Amino acid sequence: MTSSVLSARPANGGPGGNTLNTEGAMLETAPTRYVEGGGVRFAYRALGPAKGTPLVLLQHFSGNIDAWDPAVVNRLAADRPVIAFDNAGVGRSGGQTPDSIEAMAGDAVSFIKLLGFSEVDLLGFSLGGCVAQEIAAKHGRLVRKLILVGTAPKGGEEHLLAVLQDAFSQAAAPDIRLPLFFTKSAASQSAGQAFLKRVRARTEDRDIESTKAVTDPQAKALITWCATPDPDHGFLRAITQPALVVSGSHDTMLPADNAYAMFKGLSNAQLILYPDSGHGALFQHHELFVTHVRTFLDA
Amino acid sequence: MTSSVLSARPANGGPGGNTLNTEGAMLETAPTRYVEGGGVRFAYRALGPAKGTPLVLLQHFSGNIDAWDPAVVNRLAADRPVIAFDNAGVGRSGGQTPDSIEAMAGDAVSFIKLLGFSEVDLLGFSLGGCVAQEIAAKHGRLVRKLILVGTAPKGGEEHLLAVLQDAFSQAAAPDIRLPLFFTKSAASQSAGQAFLKRVRARTEDRDIESTKAVTDPQAKALITWCATPDPDHGFLRAITQPALVVSGSHDTMLPADNAYAMFKGLSNAQLILYPDSGHGALFQHHELFVTHVRTFLDA
Repeated sequence: MTSSVLSARPANGGPGGNTLNTEGAMLETAPTRYVEGGGVRFAYRALGPAKGTPLVLLQHFSGNIDAWDPAVVNRLAADRPVIAFDNAGVGRSGGQTPDSIEAMAGDAVSFIKLLGFSEVDLLGFSLGGCVAQEIAAKHGRLVRKLILVGTAPKGGEEHLLAVLQDAFSQAAAPDIRLPLFFTKSAASQSAGQAFLKRVRARTEDRDIESTKAVTDPQAKALITWCATPDPDHGFLRAITQPALVVSGSHDTMLPADNAYAMFKGLSNAQLILYPDSGHGALFQHHELFVTHVRTFLDA
Repeated sequence: MTSSVLSARPANGGPGGNTLNTEGAMLETAPTRYVEGGGVRFAYRALGPAKGTPLVLLQHFSGNIDAWDPAVVNRLAADRPVIAFDNAGVGRSGGQTPDSIEAMAGDAVSFIKLLGFSEVDLLGFSLGGCVAQEIAAKHGRLVRKLILVGTAPKGGEEHLLAVLQDAFSQAAAPDIRLPLFFTKSAASQSAGQAFLKRVRARTEDRDIESTKAVTDPQAKALITWCATPDPDHGFLRAITQPALVVSGSHDTMLPADNAYAMFKGLSNAQLILYPDSGHGALFQHHELFVTHVRTFLDA
């Protein structure tokens, strides 16, 4: 179960040398490291103890390493290795952003293998959840358990372009993530402000924001994924690992019906839905989410 | 939050006197106690420490105190008062079993007040989940939080008679709860056998099994509840307490669609669904369920 350790990282694992002690490191202050292979230099941050099955985070549409919530990532890293990274073409990673989930999954698998891991847990959020499903289905032995948050199955329901257009029209919002990730309730918007404060805490060596060279192919990949039918959930049924499916009650881009459909299509899934929350339910309910993830991973 | 304590129980609280120390007591060995009022003598068992909001358990169709799973009840009582009881007409309680959820809720409220509690948490399973909804909606101040397991909203989907008929036709089953509460998978049936062993562990002072005088009015109450439409979830919206809704993936009597509908109709609900499990999902996944309940109640 814990065959992979951070100390197995190869010598080109980054400025820290070939054995990293990342215990106690925090997302906001940990150095960004690099690993290169197959023509792509991947940027990542490693947190947590060296021992245990590493939890690899797969990021949402347009997001980079600094778009993860330190309240989620640091607490998860309290008792397991956690790896946040930029997939090919994103943030400080080299290469090009591909326009298909399949190619993104191939890049993520390359990265995981470059770190020397033979078995990992995956936490995929939104676009990253599609990539996690693809890896679990096609590279089954690499994945022990997977957590799918705010995401959609193949053939799922998405309202990406309409919701993005509406959000960008709200010029008053100080950050597009307030209307995109949180509901209109006072409690959710307040949680959104707290989230923004946390993700902005890092001041040195911040990751690079996504441009159209990232978001255009990512949007195409996600929309194509949702436009590809999966008759009788054949694709989901190819995923045999234990899965935890999580969604907010009022996700406007990838509605909670997707989560319920994934729960029903997967052979071994738990479903957890949170109240009064949108696409960023995992950040709004971060304490609860971390507790649920740890319960799931430790079971 | 913790205004009610077991020591507030009145002097007629049972053979143990007016202040019970139930810390460390177990469902299998705790004495059955009695409290009387309004013409009904209620049988109950009290577990757990005196301090904290009491968790009152509302039992399923045909079930008595000994139909609760000690693995669930004892672990929940590790850090809060837990009360299992027979509602009017059931088991060792006096009175008549009414044929409506409304009347059952009235009886349960009488019992809770007889114990001197001004605020409780409710865990309602199946029929007990309907009673819990009724209490939360109509006696709001009495309920802090509620947990609704394997149950249905007003107007929900039920297949009670058809599934019971099918289960009773399987003469080979050593206990009707194996086909009713567990799926056909080897894992679920094995969990069912373990459950039966746990609920049969008590040998002295066992509760009395239900006869038609209990099950006929209970069946009418449950079927009537599900046959009563709740346009636009008006009834669910009257419930404002935090709720945790739980169901098994393959509940044949009260399908998981009910849980998803309750999650959507309630204003402040979490939803948790378990894989490969039937009506008795809380007993099959008892460790996970207890952890989730404690996380919910302690938040």
